[in-house]
Amino acid sequence: MSILVIGSVALDTVKTPFGKKEEILGGSATFFSLAASFFDKVDIVAVVGEDFPKRYLTMFKKRGIGIDGLTVAKGKTFRWEGRYDYDLNTAHTIATHLNVFSNFNPQILKKLRNPDFLFLANIDPDLQYSVLKQVKRPKVVACDSMNYWIETKRRSLEKLLDKIDIMLLNDAEARQLSGESNLLKAAQLIISFGPKAVIIKRGEYGVLYFSKNTHFIAPAYLLETVYDPTGAGDTFAGGMMGYLARSRILSESNIRKSIIYGSIMASFAVEDFSVNRLLEISRKDLEDRFSAFRRITRF
Amino acid sequence: MSILVIGSVALDTVKTPFGKKEEILGGSATFFSLAASFFDKVDIVAVVGEDFPKRYLTMFKKRGIGIDGLTVAKGKTFRWEGRYDYDLNTAHTIATHLNVFSNFNPQILKKLRNPDFLFLANIDPDLQYSVLKQVKRPKVVACDSMNYWIETKRRSLEKLLDKIDIMLLNDAEARQLSGESNLLKAAQLIISFGPKAVIIKRGEYGVLYFSKNTHFIAPAYLLETVYDPTGAGDTFAGGMMGYLARSRILSESNIRKSIIYGSIMASFAVEDFSVNRLLEISRKDLEDRFSAFRRITRF
Repeated sequence: MSILVIGSVALDTVKTPFGKKEEILGGSATFFSLAASFFDKVDIVAVVGEDFPKRYLTMFKKRGIGIDGLTVAKGKTFRWEGRYDYDLNTAHTIATHLNVFSNFNPQILKKLRNPDFLFLANIDPDLQYSVLKQVKRPKVVACDSMNYWIETKRRSLEKLLDKIDIMLLNDAEARQLSGESNLLKAAQLIISFGPKAVIIKRGEYGVLYFSKNTHFIAPAYLLETVYDPTGAGDTFAGGMMGYLARSRILSESNIRKSIIYGSIMASFAVEDFSVNRLLEISRKDLEDRFSAFRRITRF
Repeated sequence: MSILVIGSVALDTVKTPFGKKEEILGGSATFFSLAASFFDKVDIVAVVGEDFPKRYLTMFKKRGIGIDGLTVAKGKTFRWEGRYDYDLNTAHTIATHLNVFSNFNPQILKKLRNPDFLFLANIDPDLQYSVLKQVKRPKVVACDSMNYWIETKRRSLEKLLDKIDIMLLNDAEARQLSGESNLLKAAQLIISFGPKAVIIKRGEYGVLYFSKNTHFIAPAYLLETVYDPTGAGDTFAGGMMGYLARSRILSESNIRKSIIYGSIMASFAVEDFSVNRLLEISRKDLEDRFSAFRRITRF
């Protein structure tokens, strides 16, 4: 099935306890699409500047990722600079240069207006809503957001929540959006805003999935080396939606497996800077880690 | 099989966002023995003062918990006062009055010197070692400790580690003891000090189990209400060792199940102050929650 992602394609400068890398490929749509491309056809809607390295466009194409919706605009590419200390769960933003992203007002190409799966990565909820209105209602719409939009655009976010299927956020955001510190209750409150399901990302502690009547707890895969957690959440979303798109049937069992595949994709992503590790691994690496995940969680 | 626990029996004053309770029953040996008593025969070695309420002694006996090793000494019972804020994972100690506990030098009664399972709760590692020397080598010896002993009695702790089977600690303690921030590596370093296995407790995020060649990741059961996390770690240990003692065979499969039973016992314990919830629940409640745990983690 076809997957569409709307989000950012960026150049990141990242410092972690393991080194510093400048102007490396980043952005939510980048991580999402690379992860999803392991499973199914994915198209990007995003904008970059004239300075965006051609080799990355070539890379996307080689991976079978559709970039007809990736506009090259006059100006510079969106840049993010951040730092992680030993607590790799927390990103400290040093600088954000929106550049061409500041005028991003996505117009979806006609041929991209009929996706089966749509991922609205973390951008202004008004833009997310505008994208949703431009496409024929997909089978599954998932949406990410962040503390900034919850604070400054709550009304827009609530309007959007009423139209989507899966809301992804981290635990702090779930508490902020719901006003409830207990995550079981927070998730049910968010579901009462509209989405059929809520996924709460807890970084190195794994993922919680909630629907109206059930929940699923997935721990994170344990790693010997975590180099750079940037993009882990979007990689998770890409793996999850990719697996769901390929499996076609939205059963509880497939949803759970999709969450494990998402976690596994994210576990690879953080083992190196940028998307380096995602470019190295094969389907077999993925399946091996899926089997290992089963072995170390079964009782 | 027989279980022996050496630790504290205390009167706690606990303040959480949900209320304050004064002079309630607490202590590592209390939580451990109550949890273990759901599965097998357990004896306490500890000391209380003359002010220790008789009704608690009656309660232990009614639960089938052996208290011949629970000395009543001249003076007052050990008291701990603590506070939890909204982050229920972190206890803030307000006051510790060791009282009769300050002269605690456990002499194990002859009839208690042959336990199959021994739990050395968090006390001075020299005392833990002295207890271990007084008993015939049990089938399984597990041991808890804390940051204070790691800092001030590392040598004693290392001597002890060489003689035990399972080391239990939280993630911060595992990092401190090993000098390694990655938990996979930290656990293997601790195993290199002697124990066959390491269990890392992560509070609301669950438990990690490591042996030389394998590991097991158990998330925590999600709760709607967490009233008081005091004693969760010792309750976990009691449920785990209780289940292992009853199942007799130390297979990987039984160890994993014992960890889930430990987690479930702890999930009940934190639903009310002191041991209140542990006194309310039945074996059936336990089995129901075990089945629920399976359902919400299976994929």
